Amino acid sequence: MKDQTTPRITTGPLPASRKIWHQGDIHPGIRVPMREIALHPSAMEPPLTVYDPSGAYTDPEATIDISAGLPRLREGWIDGRGDVERHDGRVVRPEDNGFVTGDRLTPEFPIRHRPLRAKPGNVVTQMAYARAGIITPEMEFVAIRENLGRRAAKERLARDGQDWGAAIPDHVTADFVRQEVASGRAIIPANINHPEIEPMAIGRNFLVKINANIGNSAVTSSMEEEVEKMVWATRWGADTVMDLSTGRNIHNIREWIIRNSPVPIGTVPLYQALEKVNGVAEDLSWEVYRDTLIEQAEQGVDYFTIHAGVRLPFIHLTAERVTGIVSRGGSIMAKWCLHHHRESFLYEHFEEICDIMAAYDVSFSLGDGLRPGAIADANDAAQFAELETLGELTQIAWEKGCQVMIEGPGHVPMHKIKENMDKQLAHCGEAPFYTLGPLTTDIAPGYDHITSAIGAAMIGWFGTAMLCYVTPKEHLGLPDRDDVKTGVITYKIAAHAADLAKGHPAARLRDDALSRARFEFRWEDQFNLSLDPETARDFHDQTLPKDAHKVAHFCSMCGPKFCSMKISHDIRAESRARGMEEMAARYRAGGDLYMPVED
Amino acid sequence: MKDQTTPRITTGPLPASRKIWHQGDIHPGIRVPMREIALHPSAMEPPLTVYDPSGAYTDPEATIDISAGLPRLREGWIDGRGDVERHDGRVVRPEDNGFVTGDRLTPEFPIRHRPLRAKPGNVVTQMAYARAGIITPEMEFVAIRENLGRRAAKERLARDGQDWGAAIPDHVTADFVRQEVASGRAIIPANINHPEIEPMAIGRNFLVKINANIGNSAVTSSMEEEVEKMVWATRWGADTVMDLSTGRNIHNIREWIIRNSPVPIGTVPLYQALEKVNGVAEDLSWEVYRDTLIEQAEQGVDYFTIHAGVRLPFIHLTAERVTGIVSRGGSIMAKWCLHHHRESFLYEHFEEICDIMAAYDVSFSLGDGLRPGAIADANDAAQFAELETLGELTQIAWEKGCQVMIEGPGHVPMHKIKENMDKQLAHCGEAPFYTLGPLTTDIAPGYDHITSAIGAAMIGWFGTAMLCYVTPKEHLGLPDRDDVKTGVITYKIAAHAADLAKGHPAARLRDDALSRARFEFRWEDQFNLSLDPETARDFHDQTLPKDAHKVAHFCSMCGPKFCSMKISHDIRAESRARGMEEMAARYRAGGDLYMPVED
Repeated sequence: MKDQTTPRITTGPLPASRKIWHQGDIHPGIRVPMREIALHPSAMEPPLTVYDPSGAYTDPEATIDISAGLPRLREGWIDGRGDVERHDGRVVRPEDNGFVTGDRLTPEFPIRHRPLRAKPGNVVTQMAYARAGIITPEMEFVAIRENLGRRAAKERLARDGQDWGAAIPDHVTADFVRQEVASGRAIIPANINHPEIEPMAIGRNFLVKINANIGNSAVTSSMEEEVEKMVWATRWGADTVMDLSTGRNIHNIREWIIRNSPVPIGTVPLYQALEKVNGVAEDLSWEVYRDTLIEQAEQGVDYFTIHAGVRLPFIHLTAERVTGIVSRGGSIMAKWCLHHHRESFLYEHFEEICDIMAAYDVSFSLGDGLRPGAIADANDAAQFAELETLGELTQIAWEKGCQVMIEGPGHVPMHKIKENMDKQLAHCGEAPFYTLGPLTTDIAPGYDHITSAIGAAMIGWFGTAMLCYVTPKEHLGLPDRDDVKTGVITYKIAAHAADLAKGHPAARLRDDALSRARFEFRWEDQFNLSLDPETARDFHDQTLPKDAHKVAHFCSMCGPKFCSMKISHDIRAESRARGMEEMAARYRAGGDLYMPVED
Repeated sequence: MKDQTTPRITTGPLPASRKIWHQGDIHPGIRVPMREIALHPSAMEPPLTVYDPSGAYTDPEATIDISAGLPRLREGWIDGRGDVERHDGRVVRPEDNGFVTGDRLTPEFPIRHRPLRAKPGNVVTQMAYARAGIITPEMEFVAIRENLGRRAAKERLARDGQDWGAAIPDHVTADFVRQEVASGRAIIPANINHPEIEPMAIGRNFLVKINANIGNSAVTSSMEEEVEKMVWATRWGADTVMDLSTGRNIHNIREWIIRNSPVPIGTVPLYQALEKVNGVAEDLSWEVYRDTLIEQAEQGVDYFTIHAGVRLPFIHLTAERVTGIVSRGGSIMAKWCLHHHRESFLYEHFEEICDIMAAYDVSFSLGDGLRPGAIADANDAAQFAELETLGELTQIAWEKGCQVMIEGPGHVPMHKIKENMDKQLAHCGEAPFYTLGPLTTDIAPGYDHITSAIGAAMIGWFGTAMLCYVTPKEHLGLPDRDDVKTGVITYKIAAHAADLAKGHPAARLRDDALSRARFEFRWEDQFNLSLDPETARDFHDQTLPKDAHKVAHFCSMCGPKFCSMKISHDIRAESRARGMEEMAARYRAGGDLYMPVED
């Protein structure tokens, strides 16, 4: 074992924050975590409640031991439904970890939980329960979580937004969640073998979510480092994490990640299947792929990206593209199809895939293997042919009771973004859309978190339910810790901007609280209410380092001599004192524009 | 003088770039600079021409001596019109530099050019010439510059965009520029006392421009440092620079900046006027303000932000805002109006201001002193009352022959952005809009370049002609060199994304060239074609540092074993070889979706 004196897992609350829990009504045993940000007493405001995907790691009361894993929160709920059985499960094979042995083998997770699967004839998905009229603990958990305590603040919440046909309720009830899941408009990714998660929903009528990708690195892959990547991403706001590891040790590393993850984990099983055939795409087979699905389903992966829409007849539609096929999964399938000149085995075996997904409640993330990788290729025939196919597959999966979301592009200029959302809604029956950006120009490698945040905010506004982050290293290299944080914060911005524009009833509470703090020179509150308190404080320190400046009634822009905020306070005071608000009201009502000059 | 061994001015071309010149037809003496980016021979592509606001500093042939200033390119053009006269001009007074003396006084610029002004009875603005049917050298310069050599590439340029009613021509002629300036839809900020500029246009039917703000710092203000701020911002793409200096030495520093600036310089004269009355807003007067306008017009400032729309009856409309008045200029005027309980002296003396602007061709940037500083305050009565007033003032300025642009917000959620553009077009007669962001959420101090790039890209698409940058330090502190670069690159992204979405005929050439380089693994070309070659290369080096990796046919994401781009090359080769493109075409034409399996 490595030296443990330097803790590698980041723990502890964010500044001025504490974890609070809301109890369930239908299921009184559930406790839904939220983060409460305390404000300075001078604010005379209650603490602000924000969504919190960070799990136990930000709870100072929790004991973190990654060798034990997180508490198995949902175990009782799952067992309580009586439709699952424990079994020995698939035996781990040498190829699962790339045939690595000895010192180079990442140790197995110390505790082996026997995997669950559905009893024969049962579909154990949240969708199946929802259709049967059952409000699961997961659904109530999600309902409470989505409200952000907005019942308390209800009277303040005027609706203001353009939701493009979404139907965001004033208050999310558990039955509303059930209806959304039953209809397919939302999913709750929650594998029965991942009882450690705090359930969350992905859907157009809920808060816009973000995903962060992590992956093992070739040089270092201690368990702590891999778990820390997930912890770090969720600390800053990632709602789900995709483990895109390739190469060696992926089975064992994945087990460490899942056992310690409070958020749903997604994977691309094709990547591991390719490893099992030594990276030779044409050697892939349905049998190898099926084995990998079961391997990962038993570990507890919550959603699988499955590129079943990359069909043989579509592949040559990409031939004259500027950047061809840029999806790794898409190109693997394209290579297989072309080599054998056969239809994709994922497409041909799609119903069997559904049966596996249904037996563990693994959600589909139907992959966009033909997404455009350049502005020139956006919205082309290949892309939309695949999207229509994903719509057909959605119907099949829904008939099987499976939860489904649909992946989307990619590189798309602003004027072509809405067409993506419109077509997705039309073809895929309002299944949640999950997009990568889109990047709105190709000319800024090194800044693609920004080129894509523009597109992500817009498509989130139009109705995309989850945004897959892009880091500054996109197209250039592997993201480091700072890049992951930058990517997550950038995507929290995009998702929140989308929530605001959709008119989510609780979204603006945080903007307003921060703006009031700004107007009242409560610097500490401004930092603490921001998405990244550390950076905000650090930037302020660079210009005004002294503690006294944190309570100063001026800022670094204008300095103490003249301050526009200060003048506004004077205006407000005078206005209230002299009854001039009445005069302003008179103006608003269409009164005389010009006021008499008093001298 | 300070030690000059460390050159403070950044010079030299960007990687793989050289400056080229296009000659005028109507005015054969004009030479319009562009930047040509050379590609690797294997690309078998001509160099890519891009817009270049960086002036002589990126020309290795140029001798840079900031004590001499830039060549006075336009001097002959201006003199040649025969409508201006040199005179002694206003004498510099101690208050112009904040009464600073001795060592703390920034030295005067060594060369004194006697200022020009219009001969009595003349209006010497580009608008006046345009209306008179005169195509000035400035107009032809702009026409050539805007085309980016697109005549040469004409056949490749299919129009693709949604321009929201703009009318971007396939090819910009000098007479088109004249018409746009005559109608007020575009301006060419070009003070007759700033002959050093390379003329540029701001208008909805031209490339979207960006502005960077600079300002002196209290601690350091050597001339080199202040000039370098301007040079640095234009090196990365700033099309204009606003000097927002306050405090001491501002007259002398401004002179150094203007004499060395190839781009138009904007200021807010109210800031200096306030300095002259020791920061006491209520002591301002028309006389002090007028004196400042003339002082700065004689120096060569190209556009003035003038907050003449902050009228007395509007001020109390801001009283119940979450963040009141956040514009510094707006709050200064509000304070003056309230103290005296009088209508704004800027509003009352607006025609006299126009006469001054017309005598030097200083363009108006009609300030939005009541812009919203928080999401909660967006699109409110105060903001739109001011905007309507700016529309009235635009008509007055146009009658006087003055060039006008209109400043816009601020903080606006996505769903309220388009209303800003629509109202601006309706009220202000299509005068160019010049917005600050807008920021689409308040919750991310430290990342407001990103919160605002989202809004900037959108409003640029909708028709805003120039975007004022926001740096990561916004709301927190003073931007350093890195922040300025980040702000400029971020806004180049927003402006370019807008150009693409509007369907600017030449915009996509750069995206396509970069994407082709990406598809063909021409790493050096990818770096060189990007907005920030240094950062792109540095990020690549972090993962794959070796020179050999710069020619490798794989990247850091998938590694050498499996590469989606490589598979796409195989598909293309096979497709072309086997005539399968024909089959793809058959599919597009509505043929049989499923192709027979060959085994």
